[in-house]
Amino acid sequence: MGFKIGLLGLGTVGTGTAEILLSPEGRHPVVRELEIYRVGVRSLDKPRTVQLPPEILTTDLEAIVTDPNIDIVVEVLGGLEPARSLILTAIAHGKHVVTANKAVISRFGSEIFTAANEKGVYVMLEASVGGGIPVIQPLKQALGVNRIQTVIGIVNGTTNYILTRMRDEGADFGEVLADAQRLGYAEADPTADVDGLDAADKIAILASLAFGGRIKLEDVYCEGISQVGAADIAYAEKLGFVIKLLAIAKKLDVNSELLSIRVNPTLLPKTHPLASVNGVYNAILVEGEPIGQVMFYGRGAGAGPTATAVVSDILNIVSVLKVAEPEKGRAGENVDNAAPTPPLPHSPTLHSLLACSHQHYCQIAPIEELVTRFYARFLTKDFPGVIGKLGTCFGDRGVSLESVVQTGFQGELAEIVVVTHDVREGNFRLALDDIRSLEAVDSVASLLRVL
Amino acid sequence: MGFKIGLLGLGTVGTGTAEILLSPEGRHPVVRELEIYRVGVRSLDKPRTVQLPPEILTTDLEAIVTDPNIDIVVEVLGGLEPARSLILTAIAHGKHVVTANKAVISRFGSEIFTAANEKGVYVMLEASVGGGIPVIQPLKQALGVNRIQTVIGIVNGTTNYILTRMRDEGADFGEVLADAQRLGYAEADPTADVDGLDAADKIAILASLAFGGRIKLEDVYCEGISQVGAADIAYAEKLGFVIKLLAIAKKLDVNSELLSIRVNPTLLPKTHPLASVNGVYNAILVEGEPIGQVMFYGRGAGAGPTATAVVSDILNIVSVLKVAEPEKGRAGENVDNAAPTPPLPHSPTLHSLLACSHQHYCQIAPIEELVTRFYARFLTKDFPGVIGKLGTCFGDRGVSLESVVQTGFQGELAEIVVVTHDVREGNFRLALDDIRSLEAVDSVASLLRVL
Repeated sequence: MGFKIGLLGLGTVGTGTAEILLSPEGRHPVVRELEIYRVGVRSLDKPRTVQLPPEILTTDLEAIVTDPNIDIVVEVLGGLEPARSLILTAIAHGKHVVTANKAVISRFGSEIFTAANEKGVYVMLEASVGGGIPVIQPLKQALGVNRIQTVIGIVNGTTNYILTRMRDEGADFGEVLADAQRLGYAEADPTADVDGLDAADKIAILASLAFGGRIKLEDVYCEGISQVGAADIAYAEKLGFVIKLLAIAKKLDVNSELLSIRVNPTLLPKTHPLASVNGVYNAILVEGEPIGQVMFYGRGAGAGPTATAVVSDILNIVSVLKVAEPEKGRAGENVDNAAPTPPLPHSPTLHSLLACSHQHYCQIAPIEELVTRFYARFLTKDFPGVIGKLGTCFGDRGVSLESVVQTGFQGELAEIVVVTHDVREGNFRLALDDIRSLEAVDSVASLLRVL
Repeated sequence: MGFKIGLLGLGTVGTGTAEILLSPEGRHPVVRELEIYRVGVRSLDKPRTVQLPPEILTTDLEAIVTDPNIDIVVEVLGGLEPARSLILTAIAHGKHVVTANKAVISRFGSEIFTAANEKGVYVMLEASVGGGIPVIQPLKQALGVNRIQTVIGIVNGTTNYILTRMRDEGADFGEVLADAQRLGYAEADPTADVDGLDAADKIAILASLAFGGRIKLEDVYCEGISQVGAADIAYAEKLGFVIKLLAIAKKLDVNSELLSIRVNPTLLPKTHPLASVNGVYNAILVEGEPIGQVMFYGRGAGAGPTATAVVSDILNIVSVLKVAEPEKGRAGENVDNAAPTPPLPHSPTLHSLLACSHQHYCQIAPIEELVTRFYARFLTKDFPGVIGKLGTCFGDRGVSLESVVQTGFQGELAEIVVVTHDVREGNFRLALDDIRSLEAVDSVASLLRVL
């Protein structure tokens, strides 16, 4: 066989990957040249849905990443360790790496890509964002020609599923979450999804590719969806919006190098291309000069879709290796050739559209610098005079209002919904502080940004 | 400079391409290694919006495709000749080719790719379908891992613009077309767009990539949008559909090698991802195993978007050349190096995900074999007995009806709209022949397929 794969992990994505590699018929012909040479698992005894020769399974993951026969290591373990260390060891041993691990890449990408570039190997990560949706390679290849201004994604299926059901059923966050957990669409500990942390990892990766620099994960501003109430979804609907958890990376202004990167529930006009992305589907919208808007849409998770991203990364590496080292490629044509081929001497020049060569860190603006529209819902005690007081507080801080509506009552309290024009977030927050100190204001029930 | 480009044509796309190459700041660093070495134009005197040194312009296109200094020929002339001959001559002279020419590729792709493979050069065509939307490379790379079942595209901006305005304004085809021509969204001779011929070229190309075989353009069944009336759009709306000109390539059934390829106006459920693709936007939906549905969306035409596809193709070629021939790549770093570099000796192994290696032709089923739902609108003379007679005609041919509605009157004639369940198209046509011969039936006012 041509190229030997060491697979780390045989969970959902690992199993999906093995299933593709074991059924090459009807797929790209290069899939036939790939051999699952070793599979690292936690337990040898666990029953598996995929048929693999028992002798290729091992619990010794270190042995896989140091095995001189292996060309490409596929890391689908998830989690930070031992994934990070195994990736670094694989690189140190001259192996190319394919990973689905957004958490490791968003935190240790700098360390990993520096090591990979020194060693002349590829680290590929299509599966880390958007499941099977091709977005990493298009960002590196087709879209790299553009000056990117904005990347906006619905990149977390769990929260999109919850928000879609809240909207369809008029239900509250808590009850839909409980049901989603029961159905397996949300984890027992849903924190990473519902608090936006998973989406933050992914937008950090997308921003790094789109804007050609490294991103510090702690610079990504992050709000989850637990604050979104059924009432907000209903008011948004009336105003012509849907609420989505958006991950957004954009240039603060066209000529600025300063970026704004954030994850937050956002009111999105119903006519926006992302507004009709529902359920567990993901989509990523990229805006650039001169391409305008481009959107990629598909299933953001699941064994099959994510595994296609893993295998396409392998094909990308193998195709370049065959150009650099044609002899290796030809070995693949002789399937009966059982002699182990030596590991590849790597080309001194990495393929410019596959390798990551960022050296500097992008500059990220604090959230106070963001200019955006806001939606806020207030609960107030004393309706007749309050709208005027709210208006004065906003006006004093230079916040211009698009609409102020008294929408109803919650018990003794009147509910007032405000939508602003574009405003610097810092100014808006100062106005909110003033409003919170008003005698007549009970609370700010919710606070969302508007796209 | 590193890589020398010969640009054939300085119209809309050619100008857009030159503008990108002349403004590399903020784009992929490899753009700096590309030099516009010669530009072939029809007239040297025409005023240009892009600033190019006059000495690189020439009317001698043949001299460009045979120039030993040129690495990559970019063909953005459009039309069949001289584009086809120039592409073939460029290949014969060992040049890689990037083209936006769907007409040439859909008709002469077999001849062109055979020549390119013999010579060991690439012919790239991202710009030929969907303007700037990355869809050709994703089909070759990321999606090639899948067993593709369906490709459905809205790939013609003119017809999508017309259908969108007909729907928004309740207007008829003729008046919107006239207005679109006045605004420059439709050509003076709109035949290629409104009759679906442009979409047929594009779906032939997409099908070839998705199903891994060559396609004879004459096997693509093609209907345009001129038969779609304001009445049909209104009825479709009531039934929960929008009407779009869809280009569809699909396996006749999952285990069949037989394909159905067609372009026709189609009723699409409003909840379908393609239903909200409006105006001049294009989108391509791909369905495969195991990825499920993936969609690509963006501007399907225009100088800027299409030029990004051209330049990304150039980057793809150059990146592979730099791996195969690292010396050539390094020359690019020395911008002052004025000595002409010799043309590249081509790698004997072409990159498997860039080159087209199809040998066989796909088998295409005749349209009669298609199984689909139909929408038909009949004008009848004598309403009370007619629905029964229509039903009998359909029943006799095994056509099962989902709904039959008498929708109104047009003068003396009653209007009846029928939607069928899935039916073999051949059977449906036999039933229609029977119906046309009914005394009570005046005419079949329109006949559309339903997705």
